[in-house]
Amino acid sequence: MTLPARVKLVEVGPRDGLQNEPKILDVATKVALIDRLGRAGLRVIEAASFVSPKWVPQMADSAAVLAALQRRPGVVYPALTPNLQGFEAALAAGAREVAVFGSASEAFSQKNINCSVAESLARFEPVLAAARQAGIRVRGYVSCALGCPYEGAIAPAAVARVAGALFDLGCYEISLGDTIGAGTPEAAKRMLEAVAGRVPLDCLAGHYHDTRGMAVANIYASLQCGVRTFDASVAGLGGCPYAKGASGNVATEDAVYLLDGLGIETGVDLEALIDCAAWISEVLERPPASKVSLAKLGARSPP
Amino acid sequence: MTLPARVKLVEVGPRDGLQNEPKILDVATKVALIDRLGRAGLRVIEAASFVSPKWVPQMADSAAVLAALQRRPGVVYPALTPNLQGFEAALAAGAREVAVFGSASEAFSQKNINCSVAESLARFEPVLAAARQAGIRVRGYVSCALGCPYEGAIAPAAVARVAGALFDLGCYEISLGDTIGAGTPEAAKRMLEAVAGRVPLDCLAGHYHDTRGMAVANIYASLQCGVRTFDASVAGLGGCPYAKGASGNVATEDAVYLLDGLGIETGVDLEALIDCAAWISEVLERPPASKVSLAKLGARSPP
Repeated sequence: MTLPARVKLVEVGPRDGLQNEPKILDVATKVALIDRLGRAGLRVIEAASFVSPKWVPQMADSAAVLAALQRRPGVVYPALTPNLQGFEAALAAGAREVAVFGSASEAFSQKNINCSVAESLARFEPVLAAARQAGIRVRGYVSCALGCPYEGAIAPAAVARVAGALFDLGCYEISLGDTIGAGTPEAAKRMLEAVAGRVPLDCLAGHYHDTRGMAVANIYASLQCGVRTFDASVAGLGGCPYAKGASGNVATEDAVYLLDGLGIETGVDLEALIDCAAWISEVLERPPASKVSLAKLGARSPP
Repeated sequence: MTLPARVKLVEVGPRDGLQNEPKILDVATKVALIDRLGRAGLRVIEAASFVSPKWVPQMADSAAVLAALQRRPGVVYPALTPNLQGFEAALAAGAREVAVFGSASEAFSQKNINCSVAESLARFEPVLAAARQAGIRVRGYVSCALGCPYEGAIAPAAVARVAGALFDLGCYEISLGDTIGAGTPEAAKRMLEAVAGRVPLDCLAGHYHDTRGMAVANIYASLQCGVRTFDASVAGLGGCPYAKGASGNVATEDAVYLLDGLGIETGVDLEALIDCAAWISEVLERPPASKVSLAKLGARSPP
């Protein structure tokens, strides 16, 4: 069981994170966040969403954010696109990579995007076709990969089915989301083994929520399976919509601390990242949801 | 790599946890905490300390706690004893198991117990001899097993040396403490492999702090090495003396959630444990330092 030498981190704080934060930020602050993350060494920074602002008010100014950000060489800034209309808006705003989001759970698909899993895949088909035409890469998200807030346990085969369908449609990478942070390491391994039967391991990403403190262990277990891409959110931005005061996305700082400790290269400067986490947490008027940042900031401040 | 079918949890909240909590509790509250933990299914509950109250004021009433607690069949209530005088006080108070604490770091030994590592071992020798005479089992703690607040990195061989010495003196179990919560899974494995060359794996316990969110992953890695005993503190009681506002001992709830998810038997009822964590956190007027408890309590309360 050899761990990978290098891991790609996908920073989802400015999109998946911020969209669940109650305090609405202006364009300049969002751009500053994206810029600080790029300076800390992150190479994929999810920056925008073209979902209706009726559902996600924080993301209403996504076109302005994409227009204002200073693109760094070698860094990509994906935008979330729910359908063809969203894709066209993203393209017009200058997006060069997009993401679509499906679910491994029928109930979650209905409640979250108001359609069945099959209908969502049909809706992504023209997005993938248009993206191919425009030379734009598309990432696919699968939610509820380790459990659903409505259905409970989700069969690994159901995750493999949706992941495989997204891959067949043309997604270059499939991010497997433990949306409710219910998963534990052996469950993650069973799920990954099932999905790896349909999608090459190199095209899979772990997207783990730390709601029950299991995300770091799930990343470690996934590394043991050969997964080399992980999503994370600076300062744990976003929280958990299913439990008040609970954690959501694993904090990027915690993921980097783990990977640094394992001798795995990420290209990220942990100190710069903690500075960024401290700054955005102050902006949002809440402590960082990262134990690594809390330990560092606690050690910096007088006892 | 087969995981064990069953794990023994050593609950250290009423001693290692409480001694770092600023709010002083009365005997009745401490006894109620110990009783709730026993009812939740914990079979080893560290209950008292016979260190000078000058150093640890919270533990000044340890004799009264041991006298007042209702001993449950099959449950042991160890007491910490720094030297022969402490051991005799513990014995007089009715302790039936004790623990001594050494360090893998010279600097930490000097700062924490005011003597060298060798001197500390010499001090434990008469404790072990007296315990043997009295038919009392002695557990040994080794602090700084994955790093020291003063020396930084600690060589696995240094941990093995102290653990081996405590085992040779007659300790039946050696608890390996990541005192500053700096360890990551592969470092934990390297340390355990070194120690297992001196002490049988079945006599080792992992005592991991969650200061940087790594404790659950370190437990998982240790299970993969064959370790079957882990220390944990309900509600993460105790915090971290080295970083203000940071986590200390891994929360028992988080350890149990992991073990439940891995299909490993602990005998602990997670719901009862979360109730206990919620109660003691309210008593101490702070939120539980357990993501599992926070998720559960957040889901219980209206959004």
